[in-house]
Amino acid sequence: MAHEEKGEFALIRWIRRRLGRAPKFVAIPSGDDMAGLDLAGEGLVQITTDMLLDGVHFDTATATLRQIGYKSMACSLSDAAAMAALPRAAVASAALPRSFTPEQARELTLGMLDAADPFGCALVGGDVTAWDQPLAVNVALIATESGTLAVRRGGAQPGDDIFVTGTLGGSLVSGRHLSFTPRVAEARALAAAVSLHSMIDLSDGLSSDLNHICDESGVGCDLLADAVPISDAARSAADPLAAALNDGEDFELCFTCSPADGQRLLASPPVQVTLTRVGRITLTRDRMLVDAEGRSQPLVPRGYEHFR
Amino acid sequence: MAHEEKGEFALIRWIRRRLGRAPKFVAIPSGDDMAGLDLAGEGLVQITTDMLLDGVHFDTATATLRQIGYKSMACSLSDAAAMAALPRAAVASAALPRSFTPEQARELTLGMLDAADPFGCALVGGDVTAWDQPLAVNVALIATESGTLAVRRGGAQPGDDIFVTGTLGGSLVSGRHLSFTPRVAEARALAAAVSLHSMIDLSDGLSSDLNHICDESGVGCDLLADAVPISDAARSAADPLAAALNDGEDFELCFTCSPADGQRLLASPPVQVTLTRVGRITLTRDRMLVDAEGRSQPLVPRGYEHFR
Repeated sequence: MAHEEKGEFALIRWIRRRLGRAPKFVAIPSGDDMAGLDLAGEGLVQITTDMLLDGVHFDTATATLRQIGYKSMACSLSDAAAMAALPRAAVASAALPRSFTPEQARELTLGMLDAADPFGCALVGGDVTAWDQPLAVNVALIATESGTLAVRRGGAQPGDDIFVTGTLGGSLVSGRHLSFTPRVAEARALAAAVSLHSMIDLSDGLSSDLNHICDESGVGCDLLADAVPISDAARSAADPLAAALNDGEDFELCFTCSPADGQRLLASPPVQVTLTRVGRITLTRDRMLVDAEGRSQPLVPRGYEHFR
Repeated sequence: MAHEEKGEFALIRWIRRRLGRAPKFVAIPSGDDMAGLDLAGEGLVQITTDMLLDGVHFDTATATLRQIGYKSMACSLSDAAAMAALPRAAVASAALPRSFTPEQARELTLGMLDAADPFGCALVGGDVTAWDQPLAVNVALIATESGTLAVRRGGAQPGDDIFVTGTLGGSLVSGRHLSFTPRVAEARALAAAVSLHSMIDLSDGLSSDLNHICDESGVGCDLLADAVPISDAARSAADPLAAALNDGEDFELCFTCSPADGQRLLASPPVQVTLTRVGRITLTRDRMLVDAEGRSQPLVPRGYEHFR
């Protein structure tokens, strides 16, 4: 659910308002990477759903069905990572073009299992229909708290360090969006090592996703342009920094923690992937991009709006 | 997930085999109306997913978006009914034609809430994307055991009475498939009153769905043609019995129980909806349709095969 398309914000706001009267067992309502339910078990049962579409999230002309299946599952696993949750089980639906062969449907399923199996996440059911239109795939995933509590978007504190994992940008150009490893293990190691105040997975791009953290937390940020880790693929873009901020589909983590915990993470990283401190959460609600000379400009979430 | 399209059986069998190595916490694996997870809570957490497509499950030219949203949620609620489970929360995804207005998206959401609200089921999240293709809607739903255990497809015993609720056939012609009440309350009342050995919701049609119960239970059946309750809409069909058996989308319940419990249900029905005894589970694996003269013919699941 991190994969909300940028835009249609009015719709999403309306839906969230309409859903405002959630019953008490809904511990984490709509608006986070996963919703959290208190079902009288040990910790919250969390759920997310993501629909991936031909021509939008993948292209059947260039990606294999195994890659498409992989990405469909990996996007939902990345939502679980954003909560530092343990992925447990998934259900998948697919609308298959009528020309599809059973072999193609199997490839799609195998791709899902490629993504889920390493995390011990079980594919437990599904729904398959043929139609005269392009491929659409939906994965809904259940995760649980295990060892650590769910890390939400809304817990960022003024003064927090802002971190990202890995390098950003160029995911669509390089094809990484079809083969990325969801940061499930990294998120859980980070949450076990320090107190993560907020976290999100970078699906829309840092400029949008950091704004989501600020929105939910009621804070602002100073993002240091020079600190943003730019991927090799983004370096060959016309504007590498813009690519790193706005391309989206990085599926890395963005999280915040106290400066003391930030020091601890940098001194002795609990993960293999690179951790980069990219800025600070601020009390003012302004979201700013600050350059090496200290000049700042608004950090604008760059995405397309569906209903413009 | 009851709403597996008929056909592509080889694919579904392959997927189920491939998923055979489910971890131990998967108490109810793929192949039932919902999968059941033992997440160290009180009873099983159950999950289902259903994708509904324009031109297949609804027609945007004739159905309102509120009706389509309603049906999308009601199909998943019907899966919960089939398990006699308590629906708790749902997440929805939609692929919206790019021409959609926010108002149309809201109508779709309101329809989902029309269906979910009466059952206290919370819509807790979603995923919206615009594309250049027809509408596709997915609802994934979590239900829990509450008071009674999950009723599965595979528990039918030789000698069991077979019952259905309501009347069958003509759902697509009459438009009932857009407005049916999922039998959640009825299923829970029945499960509280007697020991239900097996249950399924009638999405594919009795001829297919009763075969699913027999397949999963390793039993056969004698379905009494004269006993099948035919809806008013099906009565005007060329072959009313065939309509009742094969039209599908009734979203009534089919269940089995001991003859003693069957007597009890008929003597003092715990539900308002009509209960009809339509046959008996048999030890032989033959699935037979028996007419008033006692002549029997095979009960053939009539559906279209996607991959024929």
